[in-house]
Amino acid sequence: MHGFRLYFIMGMPRQLTLALDASQASGSIALFEGDRLSYASYFNVSITHSETLMPQLDAALKLTGFTPAEISRILLANGPGSFTGLRIGLATAKGIAYANRCPLRAFSSLKLAALPRMHCGKNILSVIDARMKEVYAALWDEDLNLIQGPEVCPPQEILNWDFGEAWLIGDGSHILPADDRLTALHPTSLGYVPAIGLYTLDLLSESDSVYDFDSLADLQPFYLRDFSAQIQRNN
Amino acid sequence: MHGFRLYFIMGMPRQLTLALDASQASGSIALFEGDRLSYASYFNVSITHSETLMPQLDAALKLTGFTPAEISRILLANGPGSFTGLRIGLATAKGIAYANRCPLRAFSSLKLAALPRMHCGKNILSVIDARMKEVYAALWDEDLNLIQGPEVCPPQEILNWDFGEAWLIGDGSHILPADDRLTALHPTSLGYVPAIGLYTLDLLSESDSVYDFDSLADLQPFYLRDFSAQIQRNN
Repeated sequence: MHGFRLYFIMGMPRQLTLALDASQASGSIALFEGDRLSYASYFNVSITHSETLMPQLDAALKLTGFTPAEISRILLANGPGSFTGLRIGLATAKGIAYANRCPLRAFSSLKLAALPRMHCGKNILSVIDARMKEVYAALWDEDLNLIQGPEVCPPQEILNWDFGEAWLIGDGSHILPADDRLTALHPTSLGYVPAIGLYTLDLLSESDSVYDFDSLADLQPFYLRDFSAQIQRNN
Repeated sequence: MHGFRLYFIMGMPRQLTLALDASQASGSIALFEGDRLSYASYFNVSITHSETLMPQLDAALKLTGFTPAEISRILLANGPGSFTGLRIGLATAKGIAYANRCPLRAFSSLKLAALPRMHCGKNILSVIDARMKEVYAALWDEDLNLIQGPEVCPPQEILNWDFGEAWLIGDGSHILPADDRLTALHPTSLGYVPAIGLYTLDLLSESDSVYDFDSLADLQPFYLRDFSAQIQRNN
């Protein structure tokens, strides 16, 4: 009650949005105060997300002067991607959403990968390394409407898709065989940090995928394929 | 000598590139091991770059497991922008380059702002808030060749430029009066972190602007206009 009264006296509290992506080998987080990006970090280091994600978030909150309890909205990249990374990201996001009773929205990691080439005159083919000689892929028009996929398949199968002239983007771009119709771009070459992009996906998308306190348990990682351990257990 | 022999035994040391941008109200740093982005952070907080830049760099080095002495190349956004920010960024970059006897390259903050819309089918007008009711602006073609500017002038004067259909990007975009020929984008909406983009500018540009140990003192901030204190002193 005291906290609430303090806020009331000081004016309405500003919304603090945490965006996070641990779905790939690299990870990123971003903090938005209202519509302003206050802090972001990107990390592609040899230690795992389980060791980096919370310290990165802790450092971000300290620098911006917030406490974890003030996070009032969460945006998450929910796969496809690294199985372990997806579970770490979702567990972290759900934990904070549960504790703070705040809404959580989940977005496709393939759509997130396509964002930096939005409105650039061509279709966008986003590709993520799925290991085991396969890729996750999806094709978008330049307004980020889905045209084909998402699918998990060997890279050469993607070349049968009718993508026309397209941007090729995502951490798995280099796995695809060369094709004259594709203009390849590594996200890093565009200075792109995915967690920041989640804010834009949130603005662009319908709000029917918001999970609140009661529905939080229903949200699952978007694996796109059964993972090896699960297949073995089911057999 | 011991360090050198150790490196020799373990193979060639990988190049560690530090990229930094303190030229705007927001700041960012990035660390590249060879051609791989290992870490980046973006900060837009109420405390100044003099308080944030070195702690951010320190945190980046600790997470990636490097020491300051291992930085072997520096890329800097050198303005136009905030006078104080430019001096802090340049002093930091020069200090490390001097101590490590490593090369330093400086790039236009306006070109850096334009990068995320490269090859997107239109010219690119990059605009930075210059305070005192003026903007810094430059016009680029879609390959990032300079067409007009850089200039510092009142925002409405930019609308007289012959920019055709163009992307409008940069932290000063919102200051320009609305114009049907311009498609405005805030860098944040594209998930863009400028320090990361410096690596691409380095790949794209001729290498004649590299400063080494002997020429380091010659590198000055690109202010584009005399700053108020200087003008007063000269009068």
